[in-house]
Amino acid sequence: MKKIDSIQNSRVKQWKKLQTKKEREKTGLFLIEGFHLVEEALKSQDAVRTLIISENIDLPQKWNIGDIELYTVSEAIMRTLSETETPQGVIAVCEKITYDVPLTNGKFLLLDGVQDPGNLGTIIRTADAAGLDAVILGEGTADVYNSKTLRSTQGSIFHLPIIKGNLKGWITELKKQNVPVYGTALEHAVPYQEVKPQGTFALIVGNEGSGVREELLALCDHNLYIPIHGRAESLNVAVATGVLTYYLRG
Amino acid sequence: MKKIDSIQNSRVKQWKKLQTKKEREKTGLFLIEGFHLVEEALKSQDAVRTLIISENIDLPQKWNIGDIELYTVSEAIMRTLSETETPQGVIAVCEKITYDVPLTNGKFLLLDGVQDPGNLGTIIRTADAAGLDAVILGEGTADVYNSKTLRSTQGSIFHLPIIKGNLKGWITELKKQNVPVYGTALEHAVPYQEVKPQGTFALIVGNEGSGVREELLALCDHNLYIPIHGRAESLNVAVATGVLTYYLRG
Repeated sequence: MKKIDSIQNSRVKQWKKLQTKKEREKTGLFLIEGFHLVEEALKSQDAVRTLIISENIDLPQKWNIGDIELYTVSEAIMRTLSETETPQGVIAVCEKITYDVPLTNGKFLLLDGVQDPGNLGTIIRTADAAGLDAVILGEGTADVYNSKTLRSTQGSIFHLPIIKGNLKGWITELKKQNVPVYGTALEHAVPYQEVKPQGTFALIVGNEGSGVREELLALCDHNLYIPIHGRAESLNVAVATGVLTYYLRG
Repeated sequence: MKKIDSIQNSRVKQWKKLQTKKEREKTGLFLIEGFHLVEEALKSQDAVRTLIISENIDLPQKWNIGDIELYTVSEAIMRTLSETETPQGVIAVCEKITYDVPLTNGKFLLLDGVQDPGNLGTIIRTADAAGLDAVILGEGTADVYNSKTLRSTQGSIFHLPIIKGNLKGWITELKKQNVPVYGTALEHAVPYQEVKPQGTFALIVGNEGSGVREELLALCDHNLYIPIHGRAESLNVAVATGVLTYYLRG
């Protein structure tokens, strides 16, 4: 275990840079914080590269640290690295994971420009709970490695493949593999109960304001809507994802 | 139309006080802001008492202001009254509405200690979309009139009765009226698909961390859970509310 007291330490500066998307994309690394998220990361093979803890913190006995690099830091350093108001005193530097996902016989969620970091995290958590096989982040979707998104996933980021992709390409490939692709739309769409629950499907949900792009909807096998029985204009996109994925998987 | 330029104006001070829960409870008034929320409020009979707009703002032609008090204020005043980073320049002082809700043959959502303002707002929006008849805010639930909650409702606060209540009392009354009452729990519960969709029901969802209190679960006709097919520990409470209400109403 190594100890760092100076906020000017070059490692501290490097870690802090990971708060920016630019640095995360350059290095392929990202930060997570808090006991629950770090514990989920430790369960995920090779995800954690470095563990950083406040000097006053005891690590839980059950954590299997193995030969992961471990640093203790002053509370001042922890505060500068943390992106929460009340840091728990535990941060991990993780490596982005790359996945190879087979396209046959799976359940897929495609996101077209979901912008709110909290929504994105909650959607990933929902996809995990519903047992989906992968989440594809299309053009214009928020950065999955920002701290608010990671927190909202509650660790699900480590539970299923999350892949950046070109949605047109994905839809074309999925259709070739006979995976039915369902868009979501308010017009030219059918109530979701008109399709049957099934073992393989791809669902596309879209931007909070503008929904799924027309050019993608045109490629889908069916476009679905969730009937609005009251006077709301629409559902929150994470709630809609929950209703549709739980229905479709049956 | 009256014009206010001084941030020291006594009305401005009174309005600003409505940012606190204490003042809202004392006066029965609350603030909403932004074009969409104010428009929804204007559609709701007698909800808006006073309209406050920035001097550079034109009100939409379609808004029916009637004899509502109207003030224009300087941008500095708008910034002090606004609770968003980029104020739209429109704020309304609204009166809390009281409701008399018949307990027979309805669809009800009971909230036991939902604490996150964003979750609470999203749940109210979801209940509106699902066509529920009322949302009952039990003990320990966040204040529905805080700005983050109101924003997350997207106006649904004006679409259905939202009532503070004692949940034990409500459950007892609902059961007397033969409304089946469903709790949500991870243990001693059945998968939600084991009950049938139905025309009248009451669903209870609980605190983000601890769920619905045991003493309430003991009073329910059945307690339901949403199966977790992946490795997430649970669903976000607003997402769970969406899955269950859309299933139960059929």
